[in-house]
Amino acid sequence: MKIFSDAQFSPSAAELLREGVAPHELLLPRQPASSVLAKSEPDPAFASAEVAVGQPDVASVEGSRALRWLHLTSAGFTRYDTAEFRALAAARGLAVTNSSSVYEEACAEHAFAFMMAQSRRLPRALATRTASGTPEWLDLRDASVSLRGQCVLILGFGAIAARLVQLLAPFEMRILALRRRPRGDEGVEIVSAGQLDASLAAVDHVVNILPENAESRHFMDGARFAAMRTGAAFYNIGRGATVDQDALAKALHLGRLAAAWLDVTDPEPLPAEHPLLSAPNCHITPHTAGGHRHEPETLVRHFLGNLRRFEAGKPLKDRII
Amino acid sequence: MKIFSDAQFSPSAAELLREGVAPHELLLPRQPASSVLAKSEPDPAFASAEVAVGQPDVASVEGSRALRWLHLTSAGFTRYDTAEFRALAAARGLAVTNSSSVYEEACAEHAFAFMMAQSRRLPRALATRTASGTPEWLDLRDASVSLRGQCVLILGFGAIAARLVQLLAPFEMRILALRRRPRGDEGVEIVSAGQLDASLAAVDHVVNILPENAESRHFMDGARFAAMRTGAAFYNIGRGATVDQDALAKALHLGRLAAAWLDVTDPEPLPAEHPLLSAPNCHITPHTAGGHRHEPETLVRHFLGNLRRFEAGKPLKDRII
Repeated sequence: MKIFSDAQFSPSAAELLREGVAPHELLLPRQPASSVLAKSEPDPAFASAEVAVGQPDVASVEGSRALRWLHLTSAGFTRYDTAEFRALAAARGLAVTNSSSVYEEACAEHAFAFMMAQSRRLPRALATRTASGTPEWLDLRDASVSLRGQCVLILGFGAIAARLVQLLAPFEMRILALRRRPRGDEGVEIVSAGQLDASLAAVDHVVNILPENAESRHFMDGARFAAMRTGAAFYNIGRGATVDQDALAKALHLGRLAAAWLDVTDPEPLPAEHPLLSAPNCHITPHTAGGHRHEPETLVRHFLGNLRRFEAGKPLKDRII
Repeated sequence: MKIFSDAQFSPSAAELLREGVAPHELLLPRQPASSVLAKSEPDPAFASAEVAVGQPDVASVEGSRALRWLHLTSAGFTRYDTAEFRALAAARGLAVTNSSSVYEEACAEHAFAFMMAQSRRLPRALATRTASGTPEWLDLRDASVSLRGQCVLILGFGAIAARLVQLLAPFEMRILALRRRPRGDEGVEIVSAGQLDASLAAVDHVVNILPENAESRHFMDGARFAAMRTGAAFYNIGRGATVDQDALAKALHLGRLAAAWLDVTDPEPLPAEHPLLSAPNCHITPHTAGGHRHEPETLVRHFLGNLRRFEAGKPLKDRII
């Protein structure tokens, strides 16, 4: 088979890929992507590929006659998540897999680290050298709230949310979740779209893990931020475009939300004058939630595991289409 | 009974105390302490008290003929933790209780928040707006390490450590602990003093929850920091004096330790020119680990619960002497 890879791996991961795809032929683009998340440019080598790994150009995938399996090196798959693409893939028998199982642990831990840092008020506590007994010290201690017995709403219930629920287990929280297609095995309270406003008003934490697609754009808008309980915290480790950032900045400036913790923004990074950068209690990490030691090697091993399954005609892991 | 309280509570907690101690007589000092942690000055009202709550002057306690029970409004009890004081309390039949069960959840969560922030590299990630694909971004993602499967050594195994072990359970870590008097019910690997250096070399995280007393002063000294694995992280939520801070600053400056996370220092706060304040990757919170919403009311309720037990001749909770 001919396997096209446009993913920009570290040297050791690239070597692992070269060795692992044998005896198949590995096709590389003239210009590799800048990261495993970045969109690639169309490339002439793509046309003959039966398998593609990376983030290939959507039009090239749609135009290919040879492609049978597309493996994405990310958990997100926004650019392929359209009705048109799904229909085309179904008509051609094209399988699409992503790398969500590579990222679920790191993403869940990142969201959880945000929640712990918020509940212990780490940004404020790390920034002061106030002495015991001062009003600032008493206020800081009083502002620290245990997760124990609090409520959280998770928007988007997939592998990351399932792992987050495990990490939250020792805190005996009430956990609500919104899921497009509930399966009944979530082990938490699933809320319907109609119950969403009441749920937003009931919880102390809203964790957004929604993927980005036509329906999720600005899902968290001004009305939904207004529905949240005063003093609640908002977290986003999904995609920046699912949030109306002006509405979020306003809610923070008004002091309605205690804090926002964002690993994703729209665009990334935000321009220097963006209102979120000056909003109070807005904490932003630069899309590092999925990152972890040996990530490139893990991505390659995940693909190679699927390649062995593909060769054997077995079901692929992390199949999304 | 006459009950002396020198604790500086919030108005609502002070009211709760006044109501709760009835029908007993509440004696208040001329000068209340600046916080629930601060040492009090000797006070003439103390001499007739049968019960004392707060942080009363040690010499006053030793000199009292009337005192039968001393209840401390902290988890730490350094100033009473001497062989002389224990002998005197035993000879007089003086019971001493502390408030460790008021603080165990918040302290364990604070230490855990430190560990999560370290593993997701939050200080670095929150301080940069680097774009995807840059060397800085790739390095930051690669530096993020899951707690899953890592090793931690806990120095001092009491109620806080036991709760921390529960919080760490979803990460399937190897957990070692040093305990003065092991009971066999810890549920983790207990290491002896003789095994300590080997344990320090084996773990990714060292969490210090040691109390301060004559034996624990500078327990973590230059030799023990040198025994730690290069790249490991050190946490202190016990007492600042159990650490040789110059040795810690040196280990950080040499890059031997990945980071230090300290809620306690010696003194508090550190003077502006202290070497730890300019040491790389040294993150300090101002003794807020035990703080939590409604802490003063919880402290008062904990004392009142014990007062009811004391009246009824039942065993006291959190008895330490």
